[in-house]
Amino acid sequence: MIVELISVGTEILLGNIVNTNAAYLSEQCALLGLSLYYQSVVGDNEQRLAETLEMAMERSDVIILSGGLGPTQDDLTKEVAAKVCGKELVPDEHSKNRIEEYFKNIGARKITDNNWKQAMVPEGSIVVDNHNGTAPGIIMEVNGKSVILLPGPPNELRPMFERDIFPYLNKLQPETISSVMVKMCGVGESAVETEIQDLINGQSNPTIATYAKTGEVHLRVTAKAVDEKEAKKLLKPVVKELKNRFGTKIYTIDEKVSLEEAVIEMLKEKELTLTTAESITGGMLSARLTNVPGASEVFKQGFVTYCNRAKRKLLDVKKSTLKDYGAVSEKTAKEMAKNGAFATGSDVCISLTGIAGPATEEDKPVGLVYMACSYNNKIIVKELHLNGERAKIRENAVVKALTMLRECILNDVEE
Amino acid sequence: MIVELISVGTEILLGNIVNTNAAYLSEQCALLGLSLYYQSVVGDNEQRLAETLEMAMERSDVIILSGGLGPTQDDLTKEVAAKVCGKELVPDEHSKNRIEEYFKNIGARKITDNNWKQAMVPEGSIVVDNHNGTAPGIIMEVNGKSVILLPGPPNELRPMFERDIFPYLNKLQPETISSVMVKMCGVGESAVETEIQDLINGQSNPTIATYAKTGEVHLRVTAKAVDEKEAKKLLKPVVKELKNRFGTKIYTIDEKVSLEEAVIEMLKEKELTLTTAESITGGMLSARLTNVPGASEVFKQGFVTYCNRAKRKLLDVKKSTLKDYGAVSEKTAKEMAKNGAFATGSDVCISLTGIAGPATEEDKPVGLVYMACSYNNKIIVKELHLNGERAKIRENAVVKALTMLRECILNDVEE
Repeated sequence: MIVELISVGTEILLGNIVNTNAAYLSEQCALLGLSLYYQSVVGDNEQRLAETLEMAMERSDVIILSGGLGPTQDDLTKEVAAKVCGKELVPDEHSKNRIEEYFKNIGARKITDNNWKQAMVPEGSIVVDNHNGTAPGIIMEVNGKSVILLPGPPNELRPMFERDIFPYLNKLQPETISSVMVKMCGVGESAVETEIQDLINGQSNPTIATYAKTGEVHLRVTAKAVDEKEAKKLLKPVVKELKNRFGTKIYTIDEKVSLEEAVIEMLKEKELTLTTAESITGGMLSARLTNVPGASEVFKQGFVTYCNRAKRKLLDVKKSTLKDYGAVSEKTAKEMAKNGAFATGSDVCISLTGIAGPATEEDKPVGLVYMACSYNNKIIVKELHLNGERAKIRENAVVKALTMLRECILNDVEE
Repeated sequence: MIVELISVGTEILLGNIVNTNAAYLSEQCALLGLSLYYQSVVGDNEQRLAETLEMAMERSDVIILSGGLGPTQDDLTKEVAAKVCGKELVPDEHSKNRIEEYFKNIGARKITDNNWKQAMVPEGSIVVDNHNGTAPGIIMEVNGKSVILLPGPPNELRPMFERDIFPYLNKLQPETISSVMVKMCGVGESAVETEIQDLINGQSNPTIATYAKTGEVHLRVTAKAVDEKEAKKLLKPVVKELKNRFGTKIYTIDEKVSLEEAVIEMLKEKELTLTTAESITGGMLSARLTNVPGASEVFKQGFVTYCNRAKRKLLDVKKSTLKDYGAVSEKTAKEMAKNGAFATGSDVCISLTGIAGPATEEDKPVGLVYMACSYNNKIIVKELHLNGERAKIRENAVVKALTMLRECILNDVEE
């Protein structure tokens, strides 16, 4: 089945916003096993939208439009789509009630008239409730094709897609799709691809697709079957095989779990407290750890020791170490980690020192990073040579530190 | 003049990457005063790319294609575009030499044969040097239309556009475009729009466009004239008027300067040192400050005091304060800032404590944030009520802290 995306909104054509909806919907369509050949963006213009939709209906089976469902005069996606599909707009009592409810809940005193426009729907269409806003989603089925209208704000579009549109599209197909996301760290993309070359070559159902993130590799394993249960049965041996091959490199098979979340979870299980001692990353590691709700159970505090004096004063790094080896050295990283753990009474302390650039320092190259982990009084240190610009080096260093931390916890288990 | 974008790449259709090139190119086209009516994305497929390009050439004057210029078999943008434009591909000696040079510079031992594909160019086309990669850009002029091919990687596309394509497009037009970005903080989008309603209503040349970022408002002022000098002359009184109206809310009129950079610059000028004491933001503020190369001149160290014990131990917050008022209180924020400055001997310390959610704490609502600034021993504190989810609240709190810090420095100047 061929699907096509049309994003509607002059703000996208002006470059005011990045079209993240298209990326999200594309990934979901790939996940559903649908063939997506075209994405397009048009402004809030009746004629150009109508022409784009007409062309899409000639060449695709499912057309997903996003944006332009709001209450203002500019918003004309529903009006144009209904016209192209030959449908009249009729009032929908259910949507009217929901809009009233919505405004009552947010404590609005008055509902302006233009909001009722959002309760008009194309005759005979499927109305999809919006649990995060006022504009309902719409599905029109015309000549065996589906035209799906979704609200533009990502915090409305995504939950609506997940809850109602994904299952709808899944049912349209002769087979049901199910997938698992296998997330790994501490292994490179090409190494992963080489390792699973035989699986990829022989694959038809399930399939494996590789996604590279900074310092991580994600594999999506997707199966088709008559129903969800059968699809899951097909996934099981492949996921098991990946676990055999990559072992502890896999930090989760739960789509929603991030690396920092997995690490925090491991620390919680072992009842370990963590502190950070950051120089090059200037707080990015602690910021990322505290992205996780409930991080406070294990992460209590962190140091940002950007200058040498702070390394000495807050983390007790020896003057002679800084003088003889420099701030970017194995020895400094070790002392930062050791003393950070001691000063706070934490079980674990991870330290980072390095050169993010653009300028070199201490006659050492940009991208040189030392990180150390003090884990129950044992200290491990690593030297890294990272590529790219300042921001990239810093981001990569954070992921490498999380990976190192994870390895320390895993090794402790095995000992 | 009507312009249209075509992004080429199956990885965009699979949702593996977000199409940031389209947003960048759209903003640049808006800046050039070009009318952009359509963006599309097609995969690495000969037939679909050819059809999309043919249609674009019917309805637009300038067509910018990005991606698919690489050395592999998948990369077919140049081949397809040349065919659609009726041009043969011919070897380009200059590009061949540049590719050789490039590989020599990165220390490659051998250049694989497929790279020479990148030195083939459509006959009679303008070849645009790539200073950050091997695939040159191409401009084909056909029947009064321009077809522009750019490499896909953003770190190649952006500098090439800025250096060569922007001036080329500017020259195509009867008038020259010039613009200034006026960046503000500490003022809301709707307040800005109300304040400049008269300017926007009366505008034709220059024009003013509003862009809202988290905690910031940016205004792009764009003028058209016979040449750059005349355009700049038109911009001057409008920028002056904006400065009159918004005064110190404007932190820069330099497109490339970020808020954190502006703040670091002000601290440098006044020779002030800064420290941070973060709870809710967990290091995000220090991470953002250290994004700026050379931040180390003023920012020496920071504390992440996530738990109460760390607030007591590292920042000497009184036990009675935490007990009687709670960690999220004006009094705690003040003590964090005051003692952070004292402990490190810094001139300035900014502190943040609050509730990011999803759960409430201390019977206080999600989004409640206190931030304090100790500035040369004077302490100011602010209470904020921020909306949105955890990540949004934390991000917004960081911008508000930078804004507060800036205000403290400004007030010091005025006293």
